[in-house]
Amino acid sequence: MAIIRAEIGKRDQETKEAIIAELTDVLVKYGSPRENTHVLLYEVSYDNWAKGGVTYNNRKRAQESS
Amino acid sequence: MAIIRAEIGKRDQETKEAIIAELTDVLVKYGSPRENTHVLLYEVSYDNWAKGGVTYNNRKRAQESS
Amino acid sequence: MAIIRAEIGKRDQETKEAIIAELTDVLVKYGSPRENTHVLLYEVSYDNWAKGGVTYNNRKRAQESS
Amino acid sequence: MAIIRAEIGKRDQETKEAIIAELTDVLVKYGSPRENTHVLLYEVSYDNWAKGGVTYNNRKRAQESS
Amino acid sequence: MAIIRAEIGKRDQETKEAIIAELTDVLVKYGSPRENTHVLLYEVSYDNWAKGGVTYNNRKRAQESS
Amino acid sequence: MAIIRAEIGKRDQETKEAIIAELTDVLVKYGSPRENTHVLLYEVSYDNWAKGGVTYNNRKRAQESS
Repeated sequence: MAIIRAEIGKRDQETKEAIIAELTDVLVKYGSPRENTHVLLYEVSYDNWAKGGVTYNNRKRAQESS
Repeated sequence: MAIIRAEIGKRDQETKEAIIAELTDVLVKYGSPRENTHVLLYEVSYDNWAKGGVTYNNRKRAQESS
Repeated sequence: MAIIRAEIGKRDQETKEAIIAELTDVLVKYGSPRENTHVLLYEVSYDNWAKGGVTYNNRKRAQESS
Repeated sequence: MAIIRAEIGKRDQETKEAIIAELTDVLVKYGSPRENTHVLLYEVSYDNWAKGGVTYNNRKRAQESS
Repeated sequence: MAIIRAEIGKRDQETKEAIIAELTDVLVKYGSPRENTHVLLYEVSYDNWAKGGVTYNNRKRAQESS
Repeated sequence: MAIIRAEIGKRDQETKEAIIAELTDVLVKYGSPRENTHVLLYEVSYDNWAKGGVTYNNRKRAQESS
């Protein structure tokens, strides 16, 4: 059994479906029954997601202006 | 004390409020103080939620076309 | 479809199984297929769980000594 | 290392960035390397967030009409 | 960027490290910088994890006794 | 209202209580009612927590042996 929750940036549907399929394959490979392997993708805005106290959008702006 | 987080599909507000009330009642019945029982509903798109490596929307399409 | 994650205090197994069954019944009642309704219980220590900046264990101690 | 996930009500971007910076500072102060300290903010609708079985929006309406 | 949280059953350390490495590879393949790709494994007891209202341990017992 | 969930490494109780108090203060400062501000700390093993596909314990071992 496995429930995978991935917080990621915005992706198109095709990429999301590929990510879902391949994350599932990993857990199935290591013993999780396919039909008991669940994936939920959370597309989190880079205005709400930060590293080192600075949002990823602001980190990008700082990089671009340096 | 209890915090219940339910990932569900899209629901109308009335249904959500019934779900909230009844989930709360279950935890209160088993000892969680009502005013310390919290419920958060996450309505997850079936384009981002998958079982067996396939999103629930694609599983539905496959079912409908079989 | 539904995945319910409940953070609760320590409970005995019998109580946990009753909580699981009744939380599931609520979501099934409002349209979630029973075999696609999942519950995970997280028993969180009251040394790691706080309200108003004070752990529930310390709130209890403060209440007992007042 | 630290990953902080805060469920909050709707906030403007400036306030969110201040919250992010100060939550990060707390974990850094207690030993988490700054560049390994992550914050994600989830702005949850008060139609989906409840205490005591009643959504915060309905609690507010009840207060206002009492 | 990606944070993957996988709820799984009990695994040995070697298997966990293989799961971690391969889940990471999937997100890196689809654009997440390797050093900004995080995985957290939660090994959840099958006494606390249920499908269809019945814990996985009790489902297993029921299967074995049928 | 706010619920803060922090995934951190193992800490002693005193440090955890300081973290809890100060995380709470941040959310209270930005408008969350103190008695509606909740913190849950998850102490995650560095055998189950990875960056870049490698657990933090293995990253540390690699650093120490380089």
